[in-house]
Amino acid sequence: MSGRLLLIGIGCGDPEHLTLRAARAIAELDVLFVVTKGRGPDDELVGLRRELVRRHRPTGAPLREVELADPPRPWRTAPDYAEAVATWRAGRAALWRAALADIADGRTGGFLVWGDPSLYESTLAVVQEVREGLALELEVIPGVSSVHALTARHAIPLNRVGGAVQIMPARRLAAHGMPDGVDDVVVMLDPDCAFTALDPDGLDIHWGAFVGTPDELLLAGPLAQTGPRIVSARAAAKARKGWMFDLYLLRRR
Amino acid sequence: MSGRLLLIGIGCGDPEHLTLRAARAIAELDVLFVVTKGRGPDDELVGLRRELVRRHRPTGAPLREVELADPPRPWRTAPDYAEAVATWRAGRAALWRAALADIADGRTGGFLVWGDPSLYESTLAVVQEVREGLALELEVIPGVSSVHALTARHAIPLNRVGGAVQIMPARRLAAHGMPDGVDDVVVMLDPDCAFTALDPDGLDIHWGAFVGTPDELLLAGPLAQTGPRIVSARAAAKARKGWMFDLYLLRRR
Ligand SMILES: C[S@@+](CC[C@H](N)C(=O)[O-])C[C@H]1O[C@@H](n2cnc3c(N)ncnc32)[C@H](O)[C@@H]1O
Ligand SMILES: C[S@@+](CC[C@H](N)C(=O)[O-])C[C@H]1O[C@@H](n2cnc3c(N)ncnc32)[C@H](O)[C@@H]1O
Repeated sequence: MSGRLLLIGIGCGDPEHLTLRAARAIAELDVLFVVTKGRGPDDELVGLRRELVRRHRPTGAPLREVELADPPRPWRTAPDYAEAVATWRAGRAALWRAALADIADGRTGGFLVWGDPSLYESTLAVVQEVREGLALELEVIPGVSSVHALTARHAIPLNRVGGAVQIMPARRLAAHGMPDGVDDVVVMLDPDCAFTALDPDGLDIHWGAFVGTPDELLLAGPLAQTGPRIVSARAAAKARKGWMFDLYLLRRR
Repeated sequence: MSGRLLLIGIGCGDPEHLTLRAARAIAELDVLFVVTKGRGPDDELVGLRRELVRRHRPTGAPLREVELADPPRPWRTAPDYAEAVATWRAGRAALWRAALADIADGRTGGFLVWGDPSLYESTLAVVQEVREGLALELEVIPGVSSVHALTARHAIPLNRVGGAVQIMPARRLAAHGMPDGVDDVVVMLDPDCAFTALDPDGLDIHWGAFVGTPDELLLAGPLAQTGPRIVSARAAAKARKGWMFDLYLLRRR
């Protein structure tokens, strides 16, 4: 007898991003694992998660929630940062392993994962690390990622004919600028407008914040003119909501 | 009074990749535009399309299908290739424009687009080109792309922590090899195993054909050992089905 673990991609904000497989998976769950980090996006995810569970559980089927509270990550300035991270990771792994061991008796547990579970998400990596030796079948259910949500809302193709596309965290854009040989670059996880450090000449930007939600903001145009508009729209939205979730496509003309 | 045009991403083979928005969009259509190219994948798409329409139309609601038959593309060896392509494009544009003009009276038309409509798909680009001046509201509905379907079936992350990911057509891999500064590269549209020309040292491959369908094939491992196995599995599947649909992730160790 083995358990089942479902990593359910739920799309990135719009409850109708959910796939039919994901909706069916939510109905199949005995246990929902809920990772909390005590930051803004989690609270947003909590709202969407509640809504999805409410919509897709067969009436009356009880769903047990098991909270996996991430201890706060050590500060980058901690005296022995590498060791502090190792300790933090080991603590998290022990917590998750105990939770997963609990369903290995034949039940079905799941995580609701923002967007697509493979894209800049740690859930899958942690699960792969801790499930070793447990009688657990793993199924990853793909979802609509914020990359596809962004291009859909701007009604643009992601790539140019025959061209390559690169997806990267803002930290890499800040460190290395636009990569060579690629004219279309999607930047995610940007805490502070890394595009402002680029030479805007010949670049267009397609930006979206809270894409697919009622708070959605979209701006597009030449980086030189549109960049400053994004900086102020973003600051205003962040002040209003208390946090920010955005990404953008940089496109060489 | 203006019409509505929906570009509906349908996922890449599994009928349960469909999102709730896409299912609702199918139910809303007055007219379904069907692009045919007279090649294998179209026939596959025909099967999935029929299935989706059957499942998601309110009982009895009639759905008019309008076929947009792509004339065969000119051969690359045509005497004046550039002019031949321009003529071919103009012919297609005229056909599409007439079809779209027909729904601008207030009806809702749609295309079912394989995977996500933004990724290596011409439908959106052609629509943007020909809809100018027509009273047509455009909505693009994002879908599960083959990139996310591949990583889900292999249960792997697409990116490494802090790293970039590149997506590209095989022709670029054949021309330039693995790009610099990116350790995770997804290759699509590969007619003949471009990975065989790479130095396999230090590379892993995660390959999938017909991902999400009953014909799905998955292979993964070090490129040196796994590459030859993919070449033969692929040839056998192609001989059996008459065509091939595959992609892969190349990952530097
Ligand atoms: C931890 S990553 C998770 C990505 C997710 N797995 C996906 O498939 O989109 C979070 C980053 O994704 C982007 N993101 C996710 N959802 C978004 C949304 N609705 N609007 C704008 N950006 C979003 C932002 O760049 C954010 O910093
Ligand atoms: C014209 S592109 C369309 C891509 C599509 N828009 C998407 O989002 O995946 C076709 C290419 O996508 C890849 N592809 C699409 N569906 C696939 C599947 N089910 N299995 C393997 N590869 C697939 C193959 O590389 C194929 O050559």
